[in-house]
Amino acid sequence: MSIETIKWIKGSARIIDQTLLPNKFEYIYCRDVETMWRAIKRLSVRGAPAIGVAAAFGVLLGIQKFKGQDKPKFLKLFHKTCDYLATSRPTAVNLFNMLNAMREVVNQNPQANVATLKKLLFKEAMAIFKADQEVCRRMGDHGAKLIKNGMRCMTVCNAGALATVDYGTALGVFYSARKKARKFSVYSLETRPLLQGARLTCWELCRQKIDTTLICDNMAASLMAKKKVDIIFTGADRIASNGDTANKIGTYMLAVLAKHHGIPFYIVAPRSTFDLAIKSGKQIPIEERKSEEVTHFAGVATAPKGVKVYNPAFDVTPANLITGIVTEYGVIRPPYMKNIYETLSNR
Amino acid sequence: MSIETIKWIKGSARIIDQTLLPNKFEYIYCRDVETMWRAIKRLSVRGAPAIGVAAAFGVLLGIQKFKGQDKPKFLKLFHKTCDYLATSRPTAVNLFNMLNAMREVVNQNPQANVATLKKLLFKEAMAIFKADQEVCRRMGDHGAKLIKNGMRCMTVCNAGALATVDYGTALGVFYSARKKARKFSVYSLETRPLLQGARLTCWELCRQKIDTTLICDNMAASLMAKKKVDIIFTGADRIASNGDTANKIGTYMLAVLAKHHGIPFYIVAPRSTFDLAIKSGKQIPIEERKSEEVTHFAGVATAPKGVKVYNPAFDVTPANLITGIVTEYGVIRPPYMKNIYETLSNR
Repeated sequence: MSIETIKWIKGSARIIDQTLLPNKFEYIYCRDVETMWRAIKRLSVRGAPAIGVAAAFGVLLGIQKFKGQDKPKFLKLFHKTCDYLATSRPTAVNLFNMLNAMREVVNQNPQANVATLKKLLFKEAMAIFKADQEVCRRMGDHGAKLIKNGMRCMTVCNAGALATVDYGTALGVFYSARKKARKFSVYSLETRPLLQGARLTCWELCRQKIDTTLICDNMAASLMAKKKVDIIFTGADRIASNGDTANKIGTYMLAVLAKHHGIPFYIVAPRSTFDLAIKSGKQIPIEERKSEEVTHFAGVATAPKGVKVYNPAFDVTPANLITGIVTEYGVIRPPYMKNIYETLSNR
Repeated sequence: MSIETIKWIKGSARIIDQTLLPNKFEYIYCRDVETMWRAIKRLSVRGAPAIGVAAAFGVLLGIQKFKGQDKPKFLKLFHKTCDYLATSRPTAVNLFNMLNAMREVVNQNPQANVATLKKLLFKEAMAIFKADQEVCRRMGDHGAKLIKNGMRCMTVCNAGALATVDYGTALGVFYSARKKARKFSVYSLETRPLLQGARLTCWELCRQKIDTTLICDNMAASLMAKKKVDIIFTGADRIASNGDTANKIGTYMLAVLAKHHGIPFYIVAPRSTFDLAIKSGKQIPIEERKSEEVTHFAGVATAPKGVKVYNPAFDVTPANLITGIVTEYGVIRPPYMKNIYETLSNR
């Protein structure tokens, strides 16, 4: 794929500014943690796995200018940096999981001095970066087995290379199926309000010459009624231990519609997107974003001034609407509570 | 209300250019049938009942410049005008029903000369115009009985004053409920791709100080899951004799979601939106519009160049998902085949 959504280059985190795609392809070089925080907040980098890597890199940015060997001072800066990055977005658990992974490095090495901790943290961030690429390919290969020749697939938002370091989760399934010369097509929901489906997923899939058709979100049901959808794959921002899954707004809509039409509905997400500390989707905080995302486009008002707006960025799909969850360890199927535990514990 | 969506003024049909709302309120004066045809085609005037009136006025525009008493020549022009207007849009049956009403005037008066026919056709068009206002108020009053205090209502697209001569179908229900001092709120789906919900419905409802919240189409399911939606009202573009209903794309999605969540789902439409000549929704032609509606906004590309697009303007909701159809004669409930026939025949 080599899209290189996020990459560490000599003391800076280089990210593709996804707010500008598909019209412009530009990089942002984050040289301090504040720039990374803003990049996450304004969705220049987005997608749960990519946010996790961005957070780990953000920690490196926050501590790299620290001089000297005053460990208490260093630890204070380190934890402040982690806490700060944790405020950038609330829903995708990868952010918190990767910050915790960085914290674990510090916790596991109580004797290490500042220089050693810096090295270990750098190593951990690079391991997170590398693992993301590997698990995406493994998920893709597991998921690709679900795609038969001739299938019309559907996806929402962007769970692709741009949502990860590379390759993607749901779109990784398509890339793996394509590598196996499977013939299939994809309906991409545009995904209002910020159109990640239209702007990012269509851009990715067209680059890979995958047969892609863009639709508005409100057209998915109509296609299903016409029996033009065989299988659905989406990413995830957080999966509770019972299988309830938070993902981009509209995912729950697709899951209900899939159930009504008897269409298999799969989530594709790595271990790092699971939150085994929570029992169900009710405990997942859902980010609400500013109304201008809905009322304006390209600076043009699309609604009368002053109208109230409800703009949740995510919704929660209950586990009972999910056919299976494709992970790097294989496809987890119901009963989820038991099978998620058995698959993921001790990993 | 007095929005005056469409009005006949001294030889011209004045319409509000709805493509410019809510940012600009401008009239288009149609002085010839071609201008009216284009106004219908490009959605300057839209909404099934309003299109019906626009078609009747379009006929007047087509024949008004005819000079002399050559009746065969006049009839040729008349039918050519009707046939031409019938090509403007395919789905809303009001267009064809009102053209048929105009044709009936000619058929019923075989002895009339050109001058008389012109007068009778003018009278018929004005009757169509007036009837639309009356039936909207009657529908509104019937529908308002379904709204209890505290209800959170939902609607899609614009089935309001702007979709009719005045007052509206689904939104007419809200206006009538408001007149009865009922307390309720409305969620308006923005309705991609052309945002008639955001641009037109929110504009209308905010003008009337009705508590309105704008959402993207993909957020409706999430609100339902949170038990924040009590009842749904939509308009219709064509209702088959079995109750199957074509309406703005996304309506079928709402109906499936409503069923899943146990929410009553009502269609609001006058007699003129029924097509008793067809047995089911399968026979309703669904307009597909150009891809630029989906791939561009305000001149800005929102998708990569060359991506395929599927852009149906309507979908069909099967009768079994519809709780009731609010007409000017009252609420029609299942079994629809029987009850539609009994309610509407001989009207």
